[in-house]
Amino acid sequence: MKLYSYFRSSASYRVRIALNLKNLSYEYVPVHLVRDGGEQLKPEYRKVNPDAIVPTFVDDEQHAIQQSLAIIEYLEETHPEPPLLPKSPVDRAHVRSLALQIACEIHPLNNLRVLKYLKRTLGVDDAAKDAWYRHWVEAGFETLEARLAGDPRTGKLCFGDTPTFADLFLVPQIYNAHRFNVDTTRFPTIQRIHDYAVQLDAFARAAPGAQPDSE
Amino acid sequence: MKLYSYFRSSASYRVRIALNLKNLSYEYVPVHLVRDGGEQLKPEYRKVNPDAIVPTFVDDEQHAIQQSLAIIEYLEETHPEPPLLPKSPVDRAHVRSLALQIACEIHPLNNLRVLKYLKRTLGVDDAAKDAWYRHWVEAGFETLEARLAGDPRTGKLCFGDTPTFADLFLVPQIYNAHRFNVDTTRFPTIQRIHDYAVQLDAFARAAPGAQPDSE
Repeated sequence: MKLYSYFRSSASYRVRIALNLKNLSYEYVPVHLVRDGGEQLKPEYRKVNPDAIVPTFVDDEQHAIQQSLAIIEYLEETHPEPPLLPKSPVDRAHVRSLALQIACEIHPLNNLRVLKYLKRTLGVDDAAKDAWYRHWVEAGFETLEARLAGDPRTGKLCFGDTPTFADLFLVPQIYNAHRFNVDTTRFPTIQRIHDYAVQLDAFARAAPGAQPDSE
Repeated sequence: MKLYSYFRSSASYRVRIALNLKNLSYEYVPVHLVRDGGEQLKPEYRKVNPDAIVPTFVDDEQHAIQQSLAIIEYLEETHPEPPLLPKSPVDRAHVRSLALQIACEIHPLNNLRVLKYLKRTLGVDDAAKDAWYRHWVEAGFETLEARLAGDPRTGKLCFGDTPTFADLFLVPQIYNAHRFNVDTTRFPTIQRIHDYAVQLDAFARAAPGAQPDSE
């Protein structure tokens, strides 16, 4: 198994946590998103991932898998233990919808190519770019906080006391938020889940600072 | 079963296709995203969907489900026939990654609240806003075209000749693209799949023009 990853990429971070929780060892292939204008844009990498983003996961050499949630669902299907989704369909939908709220409503607005477009094409200054970043994180976290705080299924983690897809998406998004100086203590349930999760071994070993390409 | 939907919402459109393919009947509850400043923002709707977006799906009254992909995975788990995912994990990952590329890399940049922010907060004019819209659709479609054209698994539809998650995401995104005058004939594989899919009964009945709240 091989993971094309960048230490700071929150989408890569999600997959690293999943691989660790499933006790899978893998080859770490660093792709530097900034150096030389971005290694992800080079033709060799585009052959692996035509969308020129990380992560890419390779298990079957013929069929590299892109998109973090597709990779995580694949790991769940091929290595079901320990499960990262609950048993009942309605609970699975809840966990997936928490993950998807981060994956679809927060993260896409804040990734590198979007911030570049704001700056280079729309001429947005750094202060307005940072405000954009914080706006989408804070708007998304407000809703997530309400959902998590108001749901009896929330435990030490997003769903009960053992990790699920939702935690794999939440922790990296908080790492991102801190990089842009978002005060996450405004979101007590999210903060509490984060503080518990980052102490778990699988999460700690997946953290950006613990990666071979960390700077 | 109940679906909170807006006829033009492409995320709602995805779920409508899935419900039709599974031969499930449901109550259609219209939520007008524009009238009165947006019915989705009203407190009554926020109780159903704290994120104030459509669709929301209700099967179990206690647990409304938000996020279109979470709803579609739920339908796949609770009503497995006909299947909308292939059998092998690597093929399932491929189909999910096509759907997620649309769900995470294209659609989030073009939804209503983002376009509002560009206009109202960043003061972007209509021409630059439309260029933004087209930029993300075209960049995403270029990659999708390359992925679909280069993969032997592509058939009359995104994966073989029967509908999968990927088609449920592709067709509504093309409907959106046409609203913003994106020329999709530049993407021949995508266009061909679209033209085939929209003639299928389940897709035709899910189209915006066929909904009770259509204008």
